[in-house]
Amino acid sequence: MFETPHIHRRAMLAALVTSAAARLVLPPNPASAQDAPLPSWNEGAAKQAIVDFVRATTERSGSNYVPPEERIAAFDQDGTLWVEHPIYTQVIYCLDRVPAVVSKKPELKNVEPFKTVLSGDREAIARLSLRDLEKILVATLTGMTTEEFGAEARKWIETARDPRWKRLYTELTYQPMLEAMHYLRDNGYRTYIVTGGGQDFVRVYAEKVYGIPPEQVVGTAGATKYGYGEDGKPFLTKEPKLLLNDDKAGKVEGIHLMIGRRPAAAFGNSGGDRQMLEWTGAGAGARLKMLVLHDDAAREYAYGPALGLPNSKVGTFSQALFDEAKKSNWTVISMKNDWKRIFAFQ
Amino acid sequence: MFETPHIHRRAMLAALVTSAAARLVLPPNPASAQDAPLPSWNEGAAKQAIVDFVRATTERSGSNYVPPEERIAAFDQDGTLWVEHPIYTQVIYCLDRVPAVVSKKPELKNVEPFKTVLSGDREAIARLSLRDLEKILVATLTGMTTEEFGAEARKWIETARDPRWKRLYTELTYQPMLEAMHYLRDNGYRTYIVTGGGQDFVRVYAEKVYGIPPEQVVGTAGATKYGYGEDGKPFLTKEPKLLLNDDKAGKVEGIHLMIGRRPAAAFGNSGGDRQMLEWTGAGAGARLKMLVLHDDAAREYAYGPALGLPNSKVGTFSQALFDEAKKSNWTVISMKNDWKRIFAFQ
Repeated sequence: MFETPHIHRRAMLAALVTSAAARLVLPPNPASAQDAPLPSWNEGAAKQAIVDFVRATTERSGSNYVPPEERIAAFDQDGTLWVEHPIYTQVIYCLDRVPAVVSKKPELKNVEPFKTVLSGDREAIARLSLRDLEKILVATLTGMTTEEFGAEARKWIETARDPRWKRLYTELTYQPMLEAMHYLRDNGYRTYIVTGGGQDFVRVYAEKVYGIPPEQVVGTAGATKYGYGEDGKPFLTKEPKLLLNDDKAGKVEGIHLMIGRRPAAAFGNSGGDRQMLEWTGAGAGARLKMLVLHDDAAREYAYGPALGLPNSKVGTFSQALFDEAKKSNWTVISMKNDWKRIFAFQ
Repeated sequence: MFETPHIHRRAMLAALVTSAAARLVLPPNPASAQDAPLPSWNEGAAKQAIVDFVRATTERSGSNYVPPEERIAAFDQDGTLWVEHPIYTQVIYCLDRVPAVVSKKPELKNVEPFKTVLSGDREAIARLSLRDLEKILVATLTGMTTEEFGAEARKWIETARDPRWKRLYTELTYQPMLEAMHYLRDNGYRTYIVTGGGQDFVRVYAEKVYGIPPEQVVGTAGATKYGYGEDGKPFLTKEPKLLLNDDKAGKVEGIHLMIGRRPAAAFGNSGGDRQMLEWTGAGAGARLKMLVLHDDAAREYAYGPALGLPNSKVGTFSQALFDEAKKSNWTVISMKNDWKRIFAFQ
């Protein structure tokens, strides 16, 4: 200011007054700039929706106040917290596990779909039917104890790398969403993952990667069976029987089963999250309902009919979902416009 | 001390020294006597087991230290936290609901088992088969929305009284167990109910009665179905399809599904809790495994083969369970000897 001698006296006075007033309201805090919430979010409607929601629901005197025990925020995982395109990470895990399964059961070697997976022919693997995929999931996700499964999955998630970024899959989490989770938790929210992915799989890394403990992971879950080892020690075996298909309406049913409260905030990115957002929105008071739109082909991917692009094989942001979002006052997050950066490593 | 002039001088000196030392170690705290844990427990092996376990698992330097996120304590409900004899409280609820169900579906009026329930003939009702009971549970616990069920169950639990004590059923909770829950929570444990009872039913009152929030109630759970009302608002309907039979091995499967961690402490009272205690005990480090024995006919009830008494229709503390408890170092809580009082109102 003092380096600008021609500055208008009135403007200078105004600036001084404003600065003094600011100092009165906000005590000097060297960390405040750094601690500002959501640093990887651009200013805009999406960031503002999160900030407004948190303010409205935590102000004790406000009509939208939500008591701490009711502060539940639900996050879809694939496509909402980390990359889902062109194929779900857990499916890659299952494909990677096929050789180990076949080495234990050599009779599967020449049986489809295992034969195709073993061939390593990517084109052929991409053409596998849903039914084939199901056979692979059953063979690689069931039939072992929960401890064996946890150990295998942990080993894989700590070493496997994606082909595009050559990074661990857990590095392909969206930095702005990690910040949204932190911000909500800093304001008394408990963050839950509500995923179509396998509950046991996600629990392996959710605490380390998202700060979300196993009991706050709701996912597709199979039955387990209690038994005893030769040493008399009990164990649980993962059975090929579906208990909870945590997708679409199943997400709301899973929330009821596992949490028993209606979330106040929900984040998704596809038709699989529609009912969860509807359920969240149907509660009283301020509600946060957000959908991540994959519109950033350069930094991540762009897909979905809402963009006039073909569907991904995975998440489907259809025109119908886009229309419901508009009608129901859900906030669409544009990865391209709302996020300063996508990944922490960028 | 000063009222005993003949006291030995050395003993008096020792007492003074001890008292001074105590004053040095423990700063004067007028609330300390009142805050002593487990006031309704008599001194003895059971109380000591709880205190020792808490000390061992919360001492940071100890080899049995359990980090806060792993501090999970699981409690059976019926017969462990409140009276289960001669009939589970939830079954009384279901019987009480029959007239309302029949008034909506008059065609059931002359159909068994509804006819018998409507007759009010206690003897005949007591003779109903398990299959009959199942029909009553399905008719009274399913077919309505989760909100309708919650409202009905809440109304009942806040007014219905048991015939022996003329008290609300929620007053028939065991004061020593409420204190054990508080003591564990004061030491960083999260307390879960793991009950064969209905998850939706117990969640109605668990927060108020036990301080246990809905997401920490694991119980027998049925499927729900997502749908929309005429106003477009979504709701969940309780379906007559069992998802989780949270009893015996099902308790361990339920713990895996809903918590995803092995409890460090578990409390039960019957064969339905055997696997949960085994599972808890199979983990490393200090483990607390306790069984409530109903041996107090005067203040509550006495039943079970372990006492040479016939089984209750409900919880069954068999000789085999007693033997396993002995072999596996589980602690049996004698209601008669270990508890100063059973209920808060006594």
